[in-house]
Order: sequence, then C-alpha cells, then structure tokens
Amino acid sequence: MPQFTDERRREVRAALLDAGYTHFVADGLDGTTITDLTDAAGIAAGTFYSFFDSKEALYVAVLRNESQKVYDDLREVLDVHRSDPETAIRRFLEISTDALVENPIFTRTITRDEREHLQSRLSEEELATTRADKRELLVPSLEAWQEQGHVVAGDPNVLASALLYISYLPLHRDDVGDEYYAAVRRTLFDWAVEMVTCE
Amino acid sequence: MPQFTDERRREVRAALLDAGYTHFVADGLDGTTITDLTDAAGIAAGTFYSFFDSKEALYVAVLRNESQKVYDDLREVLDVHRSDPETAIRRFLEISTDALVENPIFTRTITRDEREHLQSRLSEEELATTRADKRELLVPSLEAWQEQGHVVAGDPNVLASALLYISYLPLHRDDVGDEYYAAVRRTLFDWAVEMVTCE
Repeated sequence: MPQFTDERRREVRAALLDAGYTHFVADGLDGTTITDLTDAAGIAAGTFYSFFDSKEALYVAVLRNESQKVYDDLREVLDVHRSDPETAIRRFLEISTDALVENPIFTRTITRDEREHLQSRLSEEELATTRADKRELLVPSLEAWQEQGHVVAGDPNVLASALLYISYLPLHRDDVGDEYYAAVRRTLFDWAVEMVTCE
Repeated sequence: MPQFTDERRREVRAALLDAGYTHFVADGLDGTTITDLTDAAGIAAGTFYSFFDSKEALYVAVLRNESQKVYDDLREVLDVHRSDPETAIRRFLEISTDALVENPIFTRTITRDEREHLQSRLSEEELATTRADKRELLVPSLEAWQEQGHVVAGDPNVLASALLYISYLPLHRDDVGDEYYAAVRRTLFDWAVEMVTCE
C-alpha cells in the first residue's frame, strides 16, 4: 500500500467521490465496479479500501457530499429569512424539492432499487443518521420560532418531518400527473406554511 | 382454442386474477411466467391470450381489481359522512393510507421496480386512466361540499390530488423513521382536513 501525504489523501478521496458520483448516476450501484472507480481516480484497485470500506460506503459518502451542498443552501435560507418564517419555510420546501429533481443521484437513490440495495447492505444505524441530518437542519429554527410565537406548538421533530414529507412530492410526479403537478405543489406548500406558522 | 361458455369465461378470468395476485405478490412481474398463471388457473398456456393481451395487462387488471375493493370502501365513507366533510376526508385518508400498507400488491407496485417495468410497457394513456380513477372518486364530493360552502374554493382536481399525495405517506415510512411516524401521519391528516374544509 503506498503511503499518501495528507494532501494527496484529500485529493484521492475527492477523486473517488467524483468518480462515484459519475458512475453511480450513469450505471447504478450494481453496474459500477471498484475498478471503474479506481481507474477514474487514477489509483490501484487495492488502494480503494484504504479510503472506503466498500462500494456502498462510497455511495453513502457521495450522497452525503451532495446532500451537504443542499444543506448549505438550506441553512443559508433559514438564516437569511430567520425573521420571516413563512418565507423561510417556503424557500426551504422549494430548495429541497428542486434538489430532488435536479440532482440525478437523489432521484436514482430514492426512486430506483438502489434504495433497497443500500438498505439491505447498511446498518439501521447508518441509515438513521441520514434521516436525522435532514430533520436536525430544521428543528433549531422551528424551536426558535416557537419561542417567538411564530410557529405552532408541538414536537419540532414532528413538524420538521411533516415538512420534509411535503418536499418528497417530485418522487410522485407520475402519480399526480403533469397536468396538475404545479398547482398541487403550490397547494401543498401553502398548506405546510399556513399550518406551521402563526400569523 | 376451446370455446368457453360465458360463465366459464368469468370463472377462468377470476382464476387468472387470483393466480396473478398470488404470483405477482410472491415473485413479481418478471419472476412470474404465463405458465405459472395458466397452471394455477387450470387452463392451457395458449388460452391465456384469449383473456389478456400480456402478463402486464393481467398485472394491471389485478391492480384494478384490488383498487376496486378499496374504492368501494372509500365511496361508502364519502357517502356515509357526506354531511360531515371533516370526518369523510379524515376517513378517506385513513383508508387510502392503510390500503397501501396492508395490501402487498400496492406496496410492491409502488415501491419496487415493478412500477418502472409497468411504465415502460404500458401506454401513457393506460397509466393516466389509473391516476384519474383515484382522483375522480373524490372530486364529486369536493364539488358538492364546495357548493355548500364546506370546502375551500379552488380546482377540486388539485385539492383531490393534494389529498391523495398525503395518503402516499406509508411509502416514505423509512424516510420519516418509526419514532415519529404515527405523529407525522396525524399531523399531515390534520393539515389536510383543516386546509380543505371551512369551519
């Protein structure tokens, strides 16, 4: 096993994340081999395992990396509109919803069988962490707004999860149908904002 | 091809629907052969095609048959509670949601890759019909309640689709997590009922 400097380790890790993103989107988890990934990253196949325990572990790291970019946008929106919870919640829903459609790794993971593969190969604990991440982004804002009387009472974890459910709408575009999709999206966002905030 | 009496045709059709349900739930669309189905129904393999054009057509017929049972329950609830839209809508959501969990053919079709297979093999028109069925069950009730001032204004097709979206919650049980699932279900039902009905 070659010895990498810290800087080189960071570079290779980033290259594996890039290669993972490209291959998983194009070929899926099962259609991608470790060699595909190490070739793309310019390292020997055996070296893969000094960076990630498995292909699935890289998949999760890619997902987390992409999610992190969305979380940064969401955090910014919650911060910028902290004195206007209606706008903050509406923008939060818009950004979460759009991310699902615009980033193929999310669509692929959630709608295709990738999800089942990951679920069967990762521990319940690892999956629970991914879930908690999303909720924990919203909870502190909801708590602050509840203290100020701008958001309804109730467990902020439950309110956050209900809001996040609304943001899964794009996964059901086919169920809703193109004709009504835009109006249904608007309606559900209105319901969420109106029910969570107090005028 | 043997000549069937009308009664025998009905029997064989029912037997194929039963066999389809059992096999599609256990083995999926791709894991089920025409012979599995005709053996179970006690007919010759070639006879299948005098009943259904394809395995996919039988799958859709099975789905419609099971949906019909749920629709009967939903129609009854809308009728029994026609003077109490809040209860009617809440019961409608409960029954739709429970059906998704309790009947494995629905879970299998919506969460697994069956959905993609069906989408690639059926015409857009055939799929649109399935969608419209669900919505059209609710729309007349919503229209009647709108006339009586018990339901908010707006395109009843959009309101119906937004309500139906709430009923897909069980498909996202893993996203929500067991800990908060029951409370999130209650919260979303409350949002829907409160936003659709006028006190």
